Order: sequence, then C-alpha cells, then structure tokens
Amino acid sequence: MAEHTSKQFDLELESIRTRVLQMGGLVEQQIRAATEALMAGDIERLQKVVDQDAQVNAMEVSIDDDCTHIIARRQPAAGDLRMIIAVIKTITDLERIGDEAQKIARMGKTIYQTERYQVPRFREIRKMSDVALGMVRRALDAFARMDVSAAEELEREDRRLDDDFNAELRQLITFMMEDPRTISMSIDTLFMAKAIERIGDHATNISEYVVYLVKGTDIRHLPPEAKLSAASGS
Amino acid sequence: MAEHTSKQFDLELESIRTRVLQMGGLVEQQIRAATEALMAGDIERLQKVVDQDAQVNAMEVSIDDDCTHIIARRQPAAGDLRMIIAVIKTITDLERIGDEAQKIARMGKTIYQTERYQVPRFREIRKMSDVALGMVRRALDAFARMDVSAAEELEREDRRLDDDFNAELRQLITFMMEDPRTISMSIDTLFMAKAIERIGDHATNISEYVVYLVKGTDIRHLPPEAKLSAASGS
Repeated sequence: MAEHTSKQFDLELESIRTRVLQMGGLVEQQIRAATEALMAGDIERLQKVVDQDAQVNAMEVSIDDDCTHIIARRQPAAGDLRMIIAVIKTITDLERIGDEAQKIARMGKTIYQTERYQVPRFREIRKMSDVALGMVRRALDAFARMDVSAAEELEREDRRLDDDFNAELRQLITFMMEDPRTISMSIDTLFMAKAIERIGDHATNISEYVVYLVKGTDIRHLPPEAKLSAASGS
Repeated sequence: MAEHTSKQFDLELESIRTRVLQMGGLVEQQIRAATEALMAGDIERLQKVVDQDAQVNAMEVSIDDDCTHIIARRQPAAGDLRMIIAVIKTITDLERIGDEAQKIARMGKTIYQTERYQVPRFREIRKMSDVALGMVRRALDAFARMDVSAAEELEREDRRLDDDFNAELRQLITFMMEDPRTISMSIDTLFMAKAIERIGDHATNISEYVVYLVKGTDIRHLPPEAKLSAASGS
C-alpha cells in the first residue's frame, strides 16, 4: 500500500479492513448455523438465522458509510482508493451471501413446518454448504492477506460447486418423477442448493476484487486463461 | 448537484451518467429480446442474447474504471462523490440484470432444444417479464431525473412480482404433479421465473441508490414505512 503522511488515515483504513473481516465472520457463522440447524431440524435456530440477517445488513450500511466519508475527507490516491472501492464491492457480496444464508434457513423452516411425508436427509446440501463455506473463508483470507492466488483456486472450486448443483438437480428430478408427493419439498431443496451455489459465486467475486485491489486489474469478466495471467503477472 | 469551478468535471460526470443510461438501455433490450425470442421459439435470437452479455459486462468494467479515475483525479466533494458511488452500485445491479436476461435466454434454449413432449406457452413468464422490464425502465428514468419517488413505487411493484412468482411456482407444482413428464421443463421454467423476479430486486436496488444520491440516506434495509419517510423527507 502507499505510504501516507497521516498515521490517522492508516488507522482508519485498517479499521475498515477489520470491520469487513468481522462482517465476513458473521456471514460465515450464518451459513454454518443455517446448515447445522437444517441438519438438526432445529426450527428455532433456523429462525435465529433469519432474524440475524438484519445485523449483516446493518454492517453493510455502516461500512459503506465509512467508505464514503473516508473518500470525501482523505481524498485517497491510487492504492488506497482501490482498497476502498474493493471494500464497497466486497461488502455488497457479503451482504448477498447473508441473504442466501437467510434463504437456506427460510426454506429449511418451510420444509420442517409443512412436510408431513418425508423430510430428506440433506446430505448433498450439507456437502455443498461445506464447499461454499470453505470458499467464503478462503476469499476473506485472501482479502486479509491481499493474496491474489485465491482467485484462480476459487474459480475452480466454483465450477465444482456448479457441478454439485447440477448433480443435485438431476437427483431431485429423479426423486420427483418417482414420487410426485415429494415435488413441493424437492423444489424447496432445489432453491436451497441454488442459494449455496450463489454463495460460491459471491465468494469468487470477492477473490477477484482482491486482484483488482493488488494489481489494479479488473479480471471479473475475463476468460479463465486471461484471469490467470492477470492475477499472476506483476 | 454542487457547482464546480471546473466545466470539464461537469462534462465528465455528465458523460458517466449518459453511459450508465446507455448500459441500462442495452440491458432493457436484452430482457426484451430474451422474452420475445422465448415466445417465438427463436433459438438463434436466444443465442444472440447469450452472446451479447459480454457487451454488458464490458460496459460495467469500463464505467467502473472511469469512476475510479474520476475520484482519484477530481477528489469530488459530497454530492458528486455520492453520484459516483451511486453509479458504481447501479452498474453492478445492471450487470446482474444482464446476467438474469442471459439466464432466461439459456433456459429458453434448453427447453426448445430438448423438449420433445410439450413446450409451454410461457404466458405467465411473459407477463412477469413485462412487469420487470417496466421496473427497470422506471428505475433508469428515476436515475436520469434524480426522482426519489420511484423507490416507493418500485417496492410495491416488486412485491407484486414476488406474488406473481409464487403464483407461477404453485401452478408449476400442480402441473408437475399432474404429469411428471413435465418436471424437467417445469424446473427450467421455474428458474426463468426466478431470474425475472431477481430483475425486479435489482431494479428496486437502483431506485434506492437514487434516494441515497439525492438525499444522502441509505434506505436499502429499512422497513417500508421508514423508507417512505426517508425518500419523501427533505
């Protein structure tokens, strides 16, 4: 990062980074809680995940506000400005990850509260959720350590998660065809799988902002090979 | 907006606003083309929508880049800075709307290319798509005219679109239960409806950035009544 004459400014930037990581920690916790409560059929805990989304949203608004103020007051130059822009984008994705965790909890509640026939075991959902959670953790870690190598890794994981989603989709379709009584519940499960698949997309976005932050290159929409060379080149 | 000593700066801001509206125009066109091609079963045109998404992405990257440069070079004060932050957020949502239009086109292609049994008439999809397109148009119009009243209107429309989605979901479930051969295609149709429902969410986000831009208040996660008073208060 650039050197500033102002120590105070350094502290402000550091504080924003710390708060992004705190928000990330809360979001990770939401995914974990939603999945565990789902596996356990714990409706109360699922509701707690739904309620706690407000806290994620409040953190987004507050960090966003700090970013705007810091730009206005400090008029940051290249590197610092990129950091702030990367933060503004990162927290948008973190907030959406929070939304997806909330959706998982909502769907879980619906299934446990309405299903009279047979609640599924959610084994595939749990597996997918573990992958997605690992991706979020990796993306936040990359943000903390300004590690550009995560982007490539997460892109690969994201493709794996897409494959898992498609496998789950095919399995659910078979399930529904064999026994139409499971249709309603299978659709809820499908939306859960979709929410997890999106968490992977958002984690990948975050790792790409880290590349932008460090290298100044926007790799979001590049083809995979070009992403790789942009992230590794200096 | 604040007065600047620099005419050049005014021109730069105006140029960014114009490009956001151009990007919005392209995104509107993508939704319209996807829906019309879907109704007509025009696979070639559906493919064109898929291909054109790259153009939407390129516009996002380029406007984003301009915003960062303008902040670094001009060190804008309150009102102008809010405008630029609002643009950065708006184009993210426009890009995602483009993604959803692309998804509609992709699903449409899949249905026409694989369905041997019975392609649905997509009447509800068309209805929902018209509502969503109207919302995007209204949000862009609000951005162009800095009209804070759109947020409330779009929030209402968004609830209507959610209801439409749920009605479509129930109808598709009935359809699948009555005839399991339609399951695969119904799931594709469901994801299309979901994509349209999300377009409504993104349009609503954009109208909320306009309130932030004009009033300096972040209303995104407020309850409906508080949103209303923040948007109308001065």
